[in-house]
Amino acid sequence: MATHKLTEEDQDGFHYTVGPYFDPVLEIEPGDTVEVETEDAFEGVIESENDKPSEVLGDNLNPQNGPIYVEGAEEGDALAVSIESIEPRGPQPRGTTCMIAEFGGLTATDRTAMLNEPLPEKVKKLDVTTDGTIWNDDITIPYEPFIGTISTSPKIDSVNALTPFKHGGNMDLPNVRPGNTIYLPVNIEGGYVYLGDCHAAQGDGELHGVAIEHPTNTTITVDLIKDWEIEWPRLEADDYIMSIGSVRPMEDCARIAYKDLIEWMVDDYGYDKWEAYMLLTQVGNVRLGNMVDPNYTIGASIDKEYL
Amino acid sequence: MATHKLTEEDQDGFHYTVGPYFDPVLEIEPGDTVEVETEDAFEGVIESENDKPSEVLGDNLNPQNGPIYVEGAEEGDALAVSIESIEPRGPQPRGTTCMIAEFGGLTATDRTAMLNEPLPEKVKKLDVTTDGTIWNDDITIPYEPFIGTISTSPKIDSVNALTPFKHGGNMDLPNVRPGNTIYLPVNIEGGYVYLGDCHAAQGDGELHGVAIEHPTNTTITVDLIKDWEIEWPRLEADDYIMSIGSVRPMEDCARIAYKDLIEWMVDDYGYDKWEAYMLLTQVGNVRLGNMVDPNYTIGASIDKEYL
Amino acid sequence: MATHKLTEEDQDGFHYTVGPYFDPVLEIEPGDTVEVETEDAFEGVIESENDKPSEVLGDNLNPQNGPIYVEGAEEGDALAVSIESIEPRGPQPRGTTCMIAEFGGLTATDRTAMLNEPLPEKVKKLDVTTDGTIWNDDITIPYEPFIGTISTSPKIDSVNALTPFKHGGNMDLPNVRPGNTIYLPVNIEGGYVYLGDCHAAQGDGELHGVAIEHPTNTTITVDLIKDWEIEWPRLEADDYIMSIGSVRPMEDCARIAYKDLIEWMVDDYGYDKWEAYMLLTQVGNVRLGNMVDPNYTIGASIDKEYL
Amino acid sequence: MATHKLTEEDQDGFHYTVGPYFDPVLEIEPGDTVEVETEDAFEGVIESENDKPSEVLGDNLNPQNGPIYVEGAEEGDALAVSIESIEPRGPQPRGTTCMIAEFGGLTATDRTAMLNEPLPEKVKKLDVTTDGTIWNDDITIPYEPFIGTISTSPKIDSVNALTPFKHGGNMDLPNVRPGNTIYLPVNIEGGYVYLGDCHAAQGDGELHGVAIEHPTNTTITVDLIKDWEIEWPRLEADDYIMSIGSVRPMEDCARIAYKDLIEWMVDDYGYDKWEAYMLLTQVGNVRLGNMVDPNYTIGASIDKEYL
Repeated sequence: MATHKLTEEDQDGFHYTVGPYFDPVLEIEPGDTVEVETEDAFEGVIESENDKPSEVLGDNLNPQNGPIYVEGAEEGDALAVSIESIEPRGPQPRGTTCMIAEFGGLTATDRTAMLNEPLPEKVKKLDVTTDGTIWNDDITIPYEPFIGTISTSPKIDSVNALTPFKHGGNMDLPNVRPGNTIYLPVNIEGGYVYLGDCHAAQGDGELHGVAIEHPTNTTITVDLIKDWEIEWPRLEADDYIMSIGSVRPMEDCARIAYKDLIEWMVDDYGYDKWEAYMLLTQVGNVRLGNMVDPNYTIGASIDKEYL
Repeated sequence: MATHKLTEEDQDGFHYTVGPYFDPVLEIEPGDTVEVETEDAFEGVIESENDKPSEVLGDNLNPQNGPIYVEGAEEGDALAVSIESIEPRGPQPRGTTCMIAEFGGLTATDRTAMLNEPLPEKVKKLDVTTDGTIWNDDITIPYEPFIGTISTSPKIDSVNALTPFKHGGNMDLPNVRPGNTIYLPVNIEGGYVYLGDCHAAQGDGELHGVAIEHPTNTTITVDLIKDWEIEWPRLEADDYIMSIGSVRPMEDCARIAYKDLIEWMVDDYGYDKWEAYMLLTQVGNVRLGNMVDPNYTIGASIDKEYL
Repeated sequence: MATHKLTEEDQDGFHYTVGPYFDPVLEIEPGDTVEVETEDAFEGVIESENDKPSEVLGDNLNPQNGPIYVEGAEEGDALAVSIESIEPRGPQPRGTTCMIAEFGGLTATDRTAMLNEPLPEKVKKLDVTTDGTIWNDDITIPYEPFIGTISTSPKIDSVNALTPFKHGGNMDLPNVRPGNTIYLPVNIEGGYVYLGDCHAAQGDGELHGVAIEHPTNTTITVDLIKDWEIEWPRLEADDYIMSIGSVRPMEDCARIAYKDLIEWMVDDYGYDKWEAYMLLTQVGNVRLGNMVDPNYTIGASIDKEYL
Repeated sequence: MATHKLTEEDQDGFHYTVGPYFDPVLEIEPGDTVEVETEDAFEGVIESENDKPSEVLGDNLNPQNGPIYVEGAEEGDALAVSIESIEPRGPQPRGTTCMIAEFGGLTATDRTAMLNEPLPEKVKKLDVTTDGTIWNDDITIPYEPFIGTISTSPKIDSVNALTPFKHGGNMDLPNVRPGNTIYLPVNIEGGYVYLGDCHAAQGDGELHGVAIEHPTNTTITVDLIKDWEIEWPRLEADDYIMSIGSVRPMEDCARIAYKDLIEWMVDDYGYDKWEAYMLLTQVGNVRLGNMVDPNYTIGASIDKEYL
């Protein structure tokens, strides 16, 4: 099993849409490990608390590394991407969060369109280390990093890097963290892994839409599971399995995630469909990833002790 | 501080709608404790796994004890209901869960109306003790009881016992458990506390709509907070505070809960509004109560270490 | 067939919630006609364009006349309420519309909660006659009056007069106009008809939440249809039939309305279920009543030429 | 002004996703007319009522002609596409509608995921002429053709042909009919017009998801409006203007459409924002395009007499 590096220089231009139309920047074998230099969601252009997002941000957000081509991956397979580690990189203050006009969970947006005046723009630049994020003199937020956006390529569409859907994408789900493995569907030859948007911490829902964004060295190992056709992303931790749904409205995320989890329990753990439905009613867990992106994201999980 | 008993006999008829139109069954002073004999959500009529819900259930579900009149409570106040203990009562198998036709999270309902055939009806009768619920030979579900439905009276409306809203109601939120305190708005003189529908355990979302329902002895202490006008229910545990929103679609639950939590942080903990918004984005927690009732329920919380 | 008058004096106090807990103000026989003096949705307290809604409006909005008891009506029946005529009454400017803070279709509300500042309050007082509403020097809006809120009583709940649901209520659907008949379910003995909130005109969706409100003399004829169990309101015009759904989110209104219409076509017009589904796909019509009330309202209809 | 032909042969392969990644099949000057041979939404593979959609349909649906490159079109411009005529073509029965499993407005889908069994599959093959569609011996549905899917290219994304959004796409809005003009945003050089999916008739909402699909000769004239930046599609008829929103949930479609219409009234017709908001509340019209596609579609309009 080889270990590859995918530096910013190797990447030579990030992608802001995720699809089959770009050339791979790296080809790997199943089981290989890749160390990826990710940029923050704003590609580093918010450098000071005096920067106004509306002035410094362009149309293209959430830069993605990739695509990484996985040898042997074909439609109908799945990729198992294990997150080995995530480490902050770059000069301090390397963390950024901000309120962006007409974006976020408690404001009118281009979709939930209203006539109200937008909220003010605000930027926080933050020192981030593996010891945590210095929020202010009183508060240090523990360093609990995860990959905000990770996907395979859709078959023919190219989905904006801000949007989560069946291919993964901008799920903003804290469970995609070191120690866990995310399963993504392969829709085209080579699968095409894209990733970026690592967060140093994030609350459930990513309330105003911007977590503690930071550039990282992120190490993943990519395995190939032949002939495992999954419709939505799935995730496995030491002690639970999780299915992930991303659409609108939010109840449909929960429906998708729980239904997919039932199917997983039936297919791989021998459960009767109704038994799974009735047990999840009593012991299922729900994690809200985001309530701000073009699709919302919910993960539904069950502890392995019940499987 | 007196301790009262509210037995089934005292209750002398449960209520299936929550409003100002019934006479109190008990009058208490602020600070008093009440031991309540609650029935299960089906009032005990599902006695065997051969019972079909569609045949044994009538129009009236989710029987509520109360109303309990609290001396001195006036519109603009809040009640603080501390859950002291919940203990199962009645003969075994005292636990019930079931799949009810056209009700639940993964089926067409009277609201999400479709032409698909309904799911099958299924009943499980379960032995429940404080050691847990015997689900089957392999699985015992820990006893983690909570009050599924608790409310004050709306001002002029009478809300079905199945519906959660600003007055509390059928939130099905596991955080309403022993050790925690729920705050409810007072809309009429005496406040009128109604409660029932205790669950021996429940997963997030209460997936098919029926948790492990069981009759209980539930002990609460009711305090009065003068001149604390709250719009939605709030909850306090040893280590966090939570605001609770119940509407449809589900994203609006999250919006309500987080917005109310921000207002709470501003009013009572000295936070600046935007500071609270930005901090919750990084450390806020979301709990999905139900995804099945006429309104869905989400609680948004923050750990007290951040306050 | 008798004709009754229900004046403001007879009414002697309006209702702001619709349920079984009030005494009838009038008892009629099936087939009787009633002339009702309705108030506007603000009970006339907005008298000038200088009035601020937030200052002059109290908690109780949308005053309802009734309840009217219909002899012989029992649970499982339906009432057929034919709207005979609606005429403006009272001194000019008798028409009112206004922007109310945190209410309406293009603003954050208590349900779609946000942190944005509310929109400004604005009031228009308007001259309304049967020739139209004088909007300004250039625009006269045709007088197309209808009943904004009409309902029977729910069985045990009392639903706020602002909320539409299975019992009818605040549907704000322009099809409830003279010449048409609305069918409402009977849930309690006597049915209990409540009505009010007549509009001189209204666009689809009632965008900011307040149509051209005005006091009226509204004449209805109430017939009783024995043993016709309907779950949602239905409506009949000379040339079409319509089913009406009121919930959130809006797609569920459309689902309810179309599903109910299919059932109506099957039960009363001999349609095969799938034939009805496929035909409505090609010729069904949808009318958006409101996009602002606690539940939204959609009517789905089919022209009688297809029946 | 030239007239071009875009035959199936010229097209030489349809597109099932709409974006900037394909080469233009035709280059035109602003003001030119194009006669397009469109296929039906199933590319003609449903040939008999015995065909099962699940067996004959592949992954790629809704074939699109194009892209058509418009000289001089640049980001920030708009295209004005006037629909000159739509005529049915091909051998009878040239019309097709069908119920597709897990697709449609009254069934569980991959997004509104449920455990119910899917509805049956059913196909109708129909004779379509300009005199109408022969539905059965009793019913002929008038020929009211329109373009179901028409779009410009998004800037970097490639959106599935089944999805409507800011670029237009699968709006299924009957107002896109001969005599009317649709305005679409230009996001890339040349604009890239894609179109297909013409319907011989369709009810509001396109209830089960498949209108009367048919191959056509569709003639459009494409004009270029420099420096008119529009965010969502707009449409103009002889007697009204309309803004079009496509997202989920459905209320957000209505919000987008009405908000955009207000902005149009302000920018081009001299309206004050609040005046427009208040007037639309009284005279605005709403048309439901689809309630079945990945995004729903609503058009909000105002009659020109009010402008």
